[in-house]
Amino acid sequence: MDDSAVLGQSKRRLAFTTDSFTVEPIFFPGGDIGRLAVCGTVNDLSMVGAKPRFLSIGFIIEEGYPLDQLKKIVQSIYQAVKEADVMIVTGDTKVVQRGKADGVYINTSGIGEVFDQVSISASHAKPGDAVIVNSPLGCHGMAVVTSREGFGFTSRIESDVAPLNELVERMVHASAKIHVLRDATRGGLATVMNEIAHQSRVEIELDETLIPVSESVRGACELLGFDPLYVANEGVLVAIVPNEVEKSILQAMKKSKYGRESQIVGRVMKGHSGRVTLKTQIGSHRILDLLSGEQLPRIC
Amino acid sequence: MDDSAVLGQSKRRLAFTTDSFTVEPIFFPGGDIGRLAVCGTVNDLSMVGAKPRFLSIGFIIEEGYPLDQLKKIVQSIYQAVKEADVMIVTGDTKVVQRGKADGVYINTSGIGEVFDQVSISASHAKPGDAVIVNSPLGCHGMAVVTSREGFGFTSRIESDVAPLNELVERMVHASAKIHVLRDATRGGLATVMNEIAHQSRVEIELDETLIPVSESVRGACELLGFDPLYVANEGVLVAIVPNEVEKSILQAMKKSKYGRESQIVGRVMKGHSGRVTLKTQIGSHRILDLLSGEQLPRIC
Repeated sequence: MDDSAVLGQSKRRLAFTTDSFTVEPIFFPGGDIGRLAVCGTVNDLSMVGAKPRFLSIGFIIEEGYPLDQLKKIVQSIYQAVKEADVMIVTGDTKVVQRGKADGVYINTSGIGEVFDQVSISASHAKPGDAVIVNSPLGCHGMAVVTSREGFGFTSRIESDVAPLNELVERMVHASAKIHVLRDATRGGLATVMNEIAHQSRVEIELDETLIPVSESVRGACELLGFDPLYVANEGVLVAIVPNEVEKSILQAMKKSKYGRESQIVGRVMKGHSGRVTLKTQIGSHRILDLLSGEQLPRIC
Repeated sequence: MDDSAVLGQSKRRLAFTTDSFTVEPIFFPGGDIGRLAVCGTVNDLSMVGAKPRFLSIGFIIEEGYPLDQLKKIVQSIYQAVKEADVMIVTGDTKVVQRGKADGVYINTSGIGEVFDQVSISASHAKPGDAVIVNSPLGCHGMAVVTSREGFGFTSRIESDVAPLNELVERMVHASAKIHVLRDATRGGLATVMNEIAHQSRVEIELDETLIPVSESVRGACELLGFDPLYVANEGVLVAIVPNEVEKSILQAMKKSKYGRESQIVGRVMKGHSGRVTLKTQIGSHRILDLLSGEQLPRIC
C-alpha cells in the first residue's frame, strides 16, 4: 500500500467530514462500533446533499483486545460498507498499551460528491417550510444506555443505526430544493432543531402528537428520566423543505427502507428569535431549550 | 457548522489518506502530537505526488486533560497548518472518561490534488534508479524515546517532524518522472527500502558511508542498542528517481528548507528478490532485513 489512496477525478463539488467513535459498550443491541463508524460518516456526508463515495478508517486498539471481537467489528464494517455502497480506500491502525484505551476507538473520515443543484445547509430554513422526520426517535441512545447499565429491560430496544444515503438520494431526486438536512445524533431532535433555528434565524414549532416515539423508548425514557426529544439517534434525519415540494419529498422518503415512517412533525415560523417550541398533546406550548452539557456521554 | 465541509470542484486526481496519532509523550523535543498529526498527513499525501489541500482533525481527549496543554497542541496545529499551507475544514471532538485514553489522541485525514503527469508508487522502482534521502536519519524516534525514558542525555536530540510538501513540489517541478516517494516513518529507512524493493520486485543497495546520521543520534542509538536505519523519522523522505533526472531533482531538493542535506545514498539493482543490502564502511555487504514487530511503540 502507498501512503495515500489515489482516486479519480470528480466533476462534482466535494464534501469532506470526519468523526471519531468511542461508544461504550462496543457491541449494543442493533449494532456495534463498526456499523456506527461507517453509518455516522456516510450520514454526515449525506446531510449536505452529497453521495458518499470514499471512506478512511483509523483504529486505535487497546493491547490485548480480543481478536475475535475485532474480527466481528471488521465484519460489521464490511457489511455496512456494502449496504451503503461506499469504498474504504485508506486506513491506519495504532495499538496502545493496556489501560490506555477502552477496547477500540475508530475514526472514519469520508469524501462525497455533492449532487448537482442542491444547496443544503442548516442556515437555509425559511418560514413556511415543513419539518420532516424519517423514523421514530430515541432508539440509539436508549439501546446503548439500557444495555450499558444492565437494567435488564424486558423489551430490548434496538439502535436505529443505519446508512441514510439511499434515502437522501431519493429525496434529492424528488426535489433538489431541500433547504436543510441534519441527522439528529448527539442531543437528539430538540438540539438539532435549536441549532437550525439559530443558524437560519427563524422560529420552529413542532407538534408533539406528530413526533414518532416507540412505546418501548417512551417507557425506558420515563423510567430513567430522559426526554426522548433529547436522546441521540443514529438513523434519524430531519429535513426542512419548502411547502411546495413537501408532498413529493415525503412520498419519495416512504419508498426507502429507512423512510417508511416519515412524517411532517412541525413547521418553520416567522420571527428571528431562533426559538423552538413544542405544541404539547394537551395543546399548550413549551419551549425546547438547548440542554447544557451532554445527556449521555460516549453514545457514539 | 454543517455535518460536512463542502469544498469546490477539482480538476485533478485526488489523493486521500488517514492517520491516528498516539505518541507518548505528547510533547517531545522538536514538536508535539499536534505538529506530528498535521505533518504526518501532509507527508502521506505528498508521497503519492499530491499537493495537500484539506485536512480533517479528530480529537479523543481524556477527561481532566489540562486545558493549557490542549491549547498548546491546538496552537501547534495552527502553526503547522500555516507552514504547510493547508486548511482544516472539518473536525470532531470526543471526550472519554479518565483512564480511558492517555491524554490526547488525534486523527488527521487529508485530501490532496495529484500533480499532473506524475505516477508515483512504491511499485515503480527500476534498476539503475538513484535512491535519495533528504535529511539525517533517526531524529524523531530518538527524540521521543530519550525524552520518554528520561535518560537525561546531555545532547538533546530534536525530532525532525516537518511538512515535506514544499520539498516534494520542488522535486515534481524539477521532473515529473519520480518513480517512488516514501516517508521513512515507522520502521525507518531500512523498513521502507524493504517494502519498496518487495513491491517493485527489485534489489536495492545502500552505501553506509553516504547515509546521513547525526553524531548525537548515532551515540544515543549505540547506548540504547538501536540501529538508526530502523528508527522512525517524521521529516525524512526517500525518493527513487531515474538516473537521467537524479541531478536536477537533487539540485531542486537542496533549495528547500527540509532538503538542504539531500544526497544519493544508494541505487536500485537488477534482480527480483526484493533484497536490500548495505555496503558497510569497511566494504563488506550486509542484508537489511525486515524487523519482526516494532522497535519502538507509540512513536507517532
